[in-house]
Amino acid sequence: MNICAVIIAGGIGTRFWPLSRKQRPKQFLPIISDKTMIEETIQRILPMLSYSNIYTIANQKQSLTLRELLPKMPSNNFLVEPKGKNTAPCLLLATAHLYLKDPESVIAVLPADHLIQDASYFLKKLKAAAHAADKSHSLITFGIPPTHPSTGYGYIQFSKKNPLSFSGEDFFRVQEFKEKPDQNTARSFLKTGAYFWNSGMFLWKAKVFSENLRKYAPEMFSHWKKILGALKSNDQNGLNAIFDEIPSISIDYALMEKTKNVLMGKGDFGWSDVGSWSSLLEIWEKDPNHNALRGECITIDTKNCLVHNPDKLTALIGLKDLVIVNTDDALLICKTDMDQKVKQVVNTLQKKGGKKYL
Amino acid sequence: MNICAVIIAGGIGTRFWPLSRKQRPKQFLPIISDKTMIEETIQRILPMLSYSNIYTIANQKQSLTLRELLPKMPSNNFLVEPKGKNTAPCLLLATAHLYLKDPESVIAVLPADHLIQDASYFLKKLKAAAHAADKSHSLITFGIPPTHPSTGYGYIQFSKKNPLSFSGEDFFRVQEFKEKPDQNTARSFLKTGAYFWNSGMFLWKAKVFSENLRKYAPEMFSHWKKILGALKSNDQNGLNAIFDEIPSISIDYALMEKTKNVLMGKGDFGWSDVGSWSSLLEIWEKDPNHNALRGECITIDTKNCLVHNPDKLTALIGLKDLVIVNTDDALLICKTDMDQKVKQVVNTLQKKGGKKYL
Repeated sequence: MNICAVIIAGGIGTRFWPLSRKQRPKQFLPIISDKTMIEETIQRILPMLSYSNIYTIANQKQSLTLRELLPKMPSNNFLVEPKGKNTAPCLLLATAHLYLKDPESVIAVLPADHLIQDASYFLKKLKAAAHAADKSHSLITFGIPPTHPSTGYGYIQFSKKNPLSFSGEDFFRVQEFKEKPDQNTARSFLKTGAYFWNSGMFLWKAKVFSENLRKYAPEMFSHWKKILGALKSNDQNGLNAIFDEIPSISIDYALMEKTKNVLMGKGDFGWSDVGSWSSLLEIWEKDPNHNALRGECITIDTKNCLVHNPDKLTALIGLKDLVIVNTDDALLICKTDMDQKVKQVVNTLQKKGGKKYL
Repeated sequence: MNICAVIIAGGIGTRFWPLSRKQRPKQFLPIISDKTMIEETIQRILPMLSYSNIYTIANQKQSLTLRELLPKMPSNNFLVEPKGKNTAPCLLLATAHLYLKDPESVIAVLPADHLIQDASYFLKKLKAAAHAADKSHSLITFGIPPTHPSTGYGYIQFSKKNPLSFSGEDFFRVQEFKEKPDQNTARSFLKTGAYFWNSGMFLWKAKVFSENLRKYAPEMFSHWKKILGALKSNDQNGLNAIFDEIPSISIDYALMEKTKNVLMGKGDFGWSDVGSWSSLLEIWEKDPNHNALRGECITIDTKNCLVHNPDKLTALIGLKDLVIVNTDDALLICKTDMDQKVKQVVNTLQKKGGKKYL
């Protein structure tokens, strides 16, 4: 079995502003450890895959940054999207590349900016999922056992009955992909125990992917064929033209929700999408007052605060539940339960001449 | 009448850390306007006094800074303390300087780091106080009508009966100087209406000062005579030796509390000693949410915050009642009602190898 990994590295998140910037999104930030998240993601799979079987996909500029961060990866493995158009076009292109090399390849699609706490357990599950993708003729995904009725994730409804077993791991038949629910719906999902979070991690055999496109997503299948054609003839202009017209939709919407052939593995390996500053409060090491502090800090009567101010002294007096991020040109202070509004700051900067801070 | 002003500019406050540092205390900071507080203080009295009649007193290093800030002041007017030893030694030295020039001089002693909101009313009162000092053979002080039962100030108990009038202003006989009281005592003070805050502003005729020292503070009077001797013979080593042995006490304790000849004018000209960061919330211009913001700021759901971050962007989300100060090497975030603990941060830095931040 020829297994390859495709790391989706093209995101342009705003939720880690002011540390994340347009040219330095989350995957290029060392927010979990002293390594960038993309480096962490690659390190995690190296016990299972060699560099020659690992690919990244991102835009031209980001791919240059990736080359610098990942000098051991073959230069042909940095796949370049003509333009950023959501995950469906991105994964059609990446899968087409590998399909042309070997339609029997099993491809593991992994986002570049997720945290996985138990890496060896993850690899065990990933190997089993690769076997499932190889043997079952299904598309494989990982569902994350939900810890709370989040309205921030999509859900995967699966059948708890008669799971299939590959390499000793259970894989469940997916019944439906659900968009981000409202609070009540999310609660009802959790009650049943048959809805897991959609992690955005997928595995498929290249030719199974192609077959499913043909059967369940005919419009995307025509783009798929065009992409294969352009790659075969090394026609960059043709590829650019395809990316101009291909719809900007997610792979969930384009394919996963439509096909009947999806199996779900349990992603119970300590997954987090590290979606906001306050999520780091659960990840970074904390002092006895539950403060997660990066940089020299003096705290007085202060608890549950997250500080990223590596180059300066920080003094905190009488505070709780704050996110504090100090960079060379901007300072963010935000109540932990309001960090979804960081996006609003970025929007304001976009509108009101604050481009230099983006 | 020959009136001179002596500006006490030798303080080394810690309450405006991290903006104030050992080499740049509050009087050298532009925290009220874009001018330093010492410049503000001098500007305020220039309609009444010429530069040749204005003196500063500070240590050697601070006097160099003062010369740079006040290029129009004659270089002989920057009086230098051999070492910082509280206000009694400082004012003995400054008064001795002026006594030797003219024992009939009336001297107005003004701290360099106070705010006065109504400058012209202040000058009217100051002129009247100078007349009182000239004609009454008393020491003159200004008491501040208390706005709340503060435990942070000393109080002046005065007789409301039969005030003396000079230039149309009332001056009240002082009965007692009171140290900083506890909360209950402060409340009882306010009830009577006969206790005002001790502002630390004084006026005296040089020879009246000398007489009062002789009568009521004999120990200090012997130091006074030695200082006069050292100044007359231009004996710097002698002066240094006197400053080695003279007790480090306040002028309140050394003289004002002991003499029977003190008159108090009402300091109802919008005085503030600008004692802490949060006091600036009452002074700086505010936005409709009562935020006082220095520097480019984006605020979302934020009220009653003070920001000093002039060189960077600040984004605040979901905050209230915070002081936020960002400098080149340190960031302070402090609940407004806890800013007295800034001193504790400075103490920690002193003890734990943080000298570079002092």
